[in-house]
Amino acid sequence: MSEAHAHRRHALRDRLRERELDAMLVTDLLNIRYLTGFTGSNAALLVHAADEPGAEERTVFCTDGRYLLQAEKQVPDLERILDRASDLALAGHVATAGYRRVGFESQHVTVDGLDALAAQADGAELVRAPGLVEQLRLVKDESEIEALRMACAAADRALADLIEHGGLRPGRTELEVARELEARMLDHGAAGPSFDTIVAAGPNSAVPHHRPTDAVLAEGDLVKLDFGALVDGYHSDMTRTVVLGRAADWQREIYQLVQAAQTAGCGAVRVDADVRAIDTAARQVIEDAGYGDRFLHGLGHGVGLEIHEAPTLSQRGDGRICAGMAVTVEPGVYLAGQGGVRIEDTLVVRPSTPELLTLTTKELVEV
Amino acid sequence: MSEAHAHRRHALRDRLRERELDAMLVTDLLNIRYLTGFTGSNAALLVHAADEPGAEERTVFCTDGRYLLQAEKQVPDLERILDRASDLALAGHVATAGYRRVGFESQHVTVDGLDALAAQADGAELVRAPGLVEQLRLVKDESEIEALRMACAAADRALADLIEHGGLRPGRTELEVARELEARMLDHGAAGPSFDTIVAAGPNSAVPHHRPTDAVLAEGDLVKLDFGALVDGYHSDMTRTVVLGRAADWQREIYQLVQAAQTAGCGAVRVDADVRAIDTAARQVIEDAGYGDRFLHGLGHGVGLEIHEAPTLSQRGDGRICAGMAVTVEPGVYLAGQGGVRIEDTLVVRPSTPELLTLTTKELVEV
Repeated sequence: MSEAHAHRRHALRDRLRERELDAMLVTDLLNIRYLTGFTGSNAALLVHAADEPGAEERTVFCTDGRYLLQAEKQVPDLERILDRASDLALAGHVATAGYRRVGFESQHVTVDGLDALAAQADGAELVRAPGLVEQLRLVKDESEIEALRMACAAADRALADLIEHGGLRPGRTELEVARELEARMLDHGAAGPSFDTIVAAGPNSAVPHHRPTDAVLAEGDLVKLDFGALVDGYHSDMTRTVVLGRAADWQREIYQLVQAAQTAGCGAVRVDADVRAIDTAARQVIEDAGYGDRFLHGLGHGVGLEIHEAPTLSQRGDGRICAGMAVTVEPGVYLAGQGGVRIEDTLVVRPSTPELLTLTTKELVEV
Repeated sequence: MSEAHAHRRHALRDRLRERELDAMLVTDLLNIRYLTGFTGSNAALLVHAADEPGAEERTVFCTDGRYLLQAEKQVPDLERILDRASDLALAGHVATAGYRRVGFESQHVTVDGLDALAAQADGAELVRAPGLVEQLRLVKDESEIEALRMACAAADRALADLIEHGGLRPGRTELEVARELEARMLDHGAAGPSFDTIVAAGPNSAVPHHRPTDAVLAEGDLVKLDFGALVDGYHSDMTRTVVLGRAADWQREIYQLVQAAQTAGCGAVRVDADVRAIDTAARQVIEDAGYGDRFLHGLGHGVGLEIHEAPTLSQRGDGRICAGMAVTVEPGVYLAGQGGVRIEDTLVVRPSTPELLTLTTKELVEV
């Protein structure tokens, strides 16, 4: 893994030089994890921009004494210093290193935080450099995709186990089902759920972001399950909606509609596609059927070290798709007071057709 | 609960007027929860400062469409508007309302975020007002203490169940024990663990912030369990260290030392005490026994809507204790390669002696 991290820092250095920065102070912990592999709760990283031989040796990592051993193990390839105020310590290092223009993450550093950094970095100019690491994170490398693949597999297997062991049945509560699903993801290697599991039964399935309650599952209910697993810091995200018993005609109708929209959305995920066009591809199917006003959220989002990250697949989004992006496609139709259906996959964009990471069937399952 | 929230907003208004602010834009979600009860993931709050009749009606709450119903239920007593960019929408409201000086949370708003707010609040002066709500949160009201009490009780009961059902025994892994403990907290009403559960066996118990692994518990091990429950957004925090089987003399020695230090620390938690003096009270006991260099972390911290909040009970801390603060007291002695002991309680400061919320015995338990 060290090699992947070095490669990412190399790519960041290219961007720093484009902006005529001597170095960049990275303080967002997820970005630090991305660039170094460090998973502790306190760290900062001062990335040296120039690409002369030995440039890597001038990049400095800082954490506090609690993480001494962990940092030796996770960040063996960088100079490490220990200081509880890790960001301030590295700001102090700026003058020592002779840097004049130093980028900082203006999307992450607070107004008070910048004052404190400036007081330490005396003389050096602190330059706004928002989102540089996030831009790199948009395109996943193979080690990231492997983590996403394992996270999606843990979720797939957990749902299969749940159904196989009769966990989805009338009489159980939404909360019980959510807890079992989360426990089964742990059984399959997840470090935890990647977000608060949604289990929504009957009329609750019409609430897009319902939180599980003591509501009891009943024969004939639509049950919507939106959940994911966390593996090596990477988040999977999948939604399936099943029927307890035989589906009624109206349930089958909206299910097939959402399924067709989801297929259309996935089909539109290809290199160079505009993110709005992908949303439109799925949305049009639902609008044509007269249900446009029952699908009021975006189609999908990027996933990775965060459960929601760029790109945004919606009419509010902006930009084009590149190979290596990991995105969700999740249309839904929600009939208030009755029930709703959402179907969601996680995909990786590939030069040809996307790679599907969530493999659970999308055919209507009547449990 | 609405009444408690109104009371908190009233207290904030007093502080705004002291600073000659016309209003305050609150964007930290925990602070919004504290002031309104709202638990969603997107919100902003513009608190009207003046205390004329009907002042509350000029305070405005904003969230997005996903939370329409939830906001009606949780924030029935304030004007509500819906906008995805909740902070920007309320910044725009500043001009409409005729505010000239508006406080913002400079400890929370990012450098880029302030630019965006300023662009919306055209004309009004945005004034740094860091930590105002956090200062109120230092002293818990009875509804908060009740939530902490329930959270601590869930943790107490989970540990009792774990031991009673033989969950702590040679042959199990740290991870299995951690998972069982977390599941049992859910059984007792927790919404989840309040932080990543620490189960550390044998030599691992000497690592202050060990994360549970596949390491197998063995006869004679010290097993350190540091864990807590989350109830209504409030975090409990407790550590107990037990021995599997009969304690060796060295284990008993450091256990009794830590126990004495913990008793001394709890005894020093009283109104008007300096936070450093509380740390010293416990630390002195350990230093006098010659183990000062084996206790290298602070004595404790505040708990509430965050697992770590003010005050800090350590030599780095600052300030005095007030009635209504909730704090942990958690000395430890760690012998690298051998094992360690930490004992931690959560207490509420009362006018006389503190109220102990974590009720599990602190006598040496040999399982």
